[in-house]
Amino acid sequence: MSILIVGSVALDNIKTPFGEVKETLGGSATYACLAAGIFSPVRLLSAAGEDLPGKYIRKLKRKNIDLAGLKICGGSTFRWTGEYGDDINEARTLSVCPERLTGDNLEIPAHYENPDYLFLANTDPEVQNGVLKRVKPLKLTVLDTMNLWINNKLKSLKYIMKKADILFINETESKMLSGEVNLISAAKKIIRHGPDIVIIKKGEHGAFLLSKEDFFAVPAYPLEKVKDPTGAGDSFAGGFLGYLSTRKKITRESLRTATVMGAVAASFTVEDFGTGRLEKTCRADVEKRFEKMQRMLDF
Amino acid sequence: MSILIVGSVALDNIKTPFGEVKETLGGSATYACLAAGIFSPVRLLSAAGEDLPGKYIRKLKRKNIDLAGLKICGGSTFRWTGEYGDDINEARTLSVCPERLTGDNLEIPAHYENPDYLFLANTDPEVQNGVLKRVKPLKLTVLDTMNLWINNKLKSLKYIMKKADILFINETESKMLSGEVNLISAAKKIIRHGPDIVIIKKGEHGAFLLSKEDFFAVPAYPLEKVKDPTGAGDSFAGGFLGYLSTRKKITRESLRTATVMGAVAASFTVEDFGTGRLEKTCRADVEKRFEKMQRMLDF
Repeated sequence: MSILIVGSVALDNIKTPFGEVKETLGGSATYACLAAGIFSPVRLLSAAGEDLPGKYIRKLKRKNIDLAGLKICGGSTFRWTGEYGDDINEARTLSVCPERLTGDNLEIPAHYENPDYLFLANTDPEVQNGVLKRVKPLKLTVLDTMNLWINNKLKSLKYIMKKADILFINETESKMLSGEVNLISAAKKIIRHGPDIVIIKKGEHGAFLLSKEDFFAVPAYPLEKVKDPTGAGDSFAGGFLGYLSTRKKITRESLRTATVMGAVAASFTVEDFGTGRLEKTCRADVEKRFEKMQRMLDF
Repeated sequence: MSILIVGSVALDNIKTPFGEVKETLGGSATYACLAAGIFSPVRLLSAAGEDLPGKYIRKLKRKNIDLAGLKICGGSTFRWTGEYGDDINEARTLSVCPERLTGDNLEIPAHYENPDYLFLANTDPEVQNGVLKRVKPLKLTVLDTMNLWINNKLKSLKYIMKKADILFINETESKMLSGEVNLISAAKKIIRHGPDIVIIKKGEHGAFLLSKEDFFAVPAYPLEKVKDPTGAGDSFAGGFLGYLSTRKKITRESLRTATVMGAVAASFTVEDFGTGRLEKTCRADVEKRFEKMQRMLDF
């Protein structure tokens, strides 16, 4: 099973009540690749500037990630600077530099063109659309997005939503996108406008999956210390897709288990700054926490 | 199995985005009794003014509720006026009249003195304390409270917390009470200071139970229309206790199932204004939704 993940590779400056890191490896595709890579080999499609430290590239290489589609362009890597206050669920973006990955500089290696699974991680909908024109996944197209694109590129986003099988979106953004205040109504409205399945991410409150056939809710893995939630949502989707790629069939059961695996992957991410904890996480760690979740949720 | 429920009986004026009701039957003990009464006979200890409409008294009588401990005093019934905005989870209290139930006017019928289960629903901790001095439950003491008492009567509240087996508290109040921003840390700190078990209510995000031996999370029953969340927390605790009273033993399993039953009871309450939906709910309705929850949460 092959997984192609498209999205940003970034250098992040992050401040939370528990500390601060500068120029740490980040980006939607980075987190998603690391999480999916726990389960399966992954191909990355992204772009970075020449200033992306070699140690970060080597780190990704060591992690089951095919970097043939990571284009190193002139200029600097995408940077995000943000901070979290006492409400660790809410990021405040202080500055963003332009993304390196654009609709114009897409170079897609030939062996990337027919993955089993395609994850369009959070990035400009025009890039996502450019990829969709050339990449034809055999099994599933999964999409993630954020408020910036709902506000500024809604038309492109809606167009891609119609082509996606699964949309990952957070609570606030699902309300923005649907115009609904009730989360269940928001999810129902979203699946009427495109994807067969929507997975609403609710941070410390977990997530739920809604489709025409199913409703499934999972709480977050309980943690006392959430050091840095950056990348939790990308890791959720990556873990979900990584697990799904290990299963022969996409069924109600495998989708539910994948949702729990997503929550588990995200729980590792938030335990340390940046990719610090996620990159040390192996399949056995994930399985162990998954089994704990099974015991915790049984009644 | 006998259940004694102590708390307020009120006349509520409620406005939500879905409408408005005036002088409707409310109060923490009312909701808790109605929810517990779905499972078992209940005894109510409360006080109201002479203006409490007879139809409300008759309604409670028809519902498995022993009113020997409902004292009708001179003056008017406790009134709460509140409204909910688009964020239906957050009530804004517009006015409150003094509670009729005080530490001084407690008249406890003799057959109330040794219930199997005692639920000190949300009311003045001095009243709760007065009851605890005279009522000796055989099995379990369960406590609920709110921000008002955390702010104004913390010393009394902490004293009762030490005598309670289970504390129900909402998310925001658990953070206030513990001084922690992380919910798991808040719950852990609370059980270090009294109750063996804490159940944190999170509105549309469900609830979780934490004790030294267990952690169990349940999502809210998914609803598209939440008309009026007033009394949801009281119904949760009532449903929890009502179900528990039908089981021979208090075990990890029965506590978990009771938590789901609490969430189910609350889901009926929020579907209509005041007690409108809850009072029409029978055991079969609850069982049906419980079974749906089982199917929804299985993986």
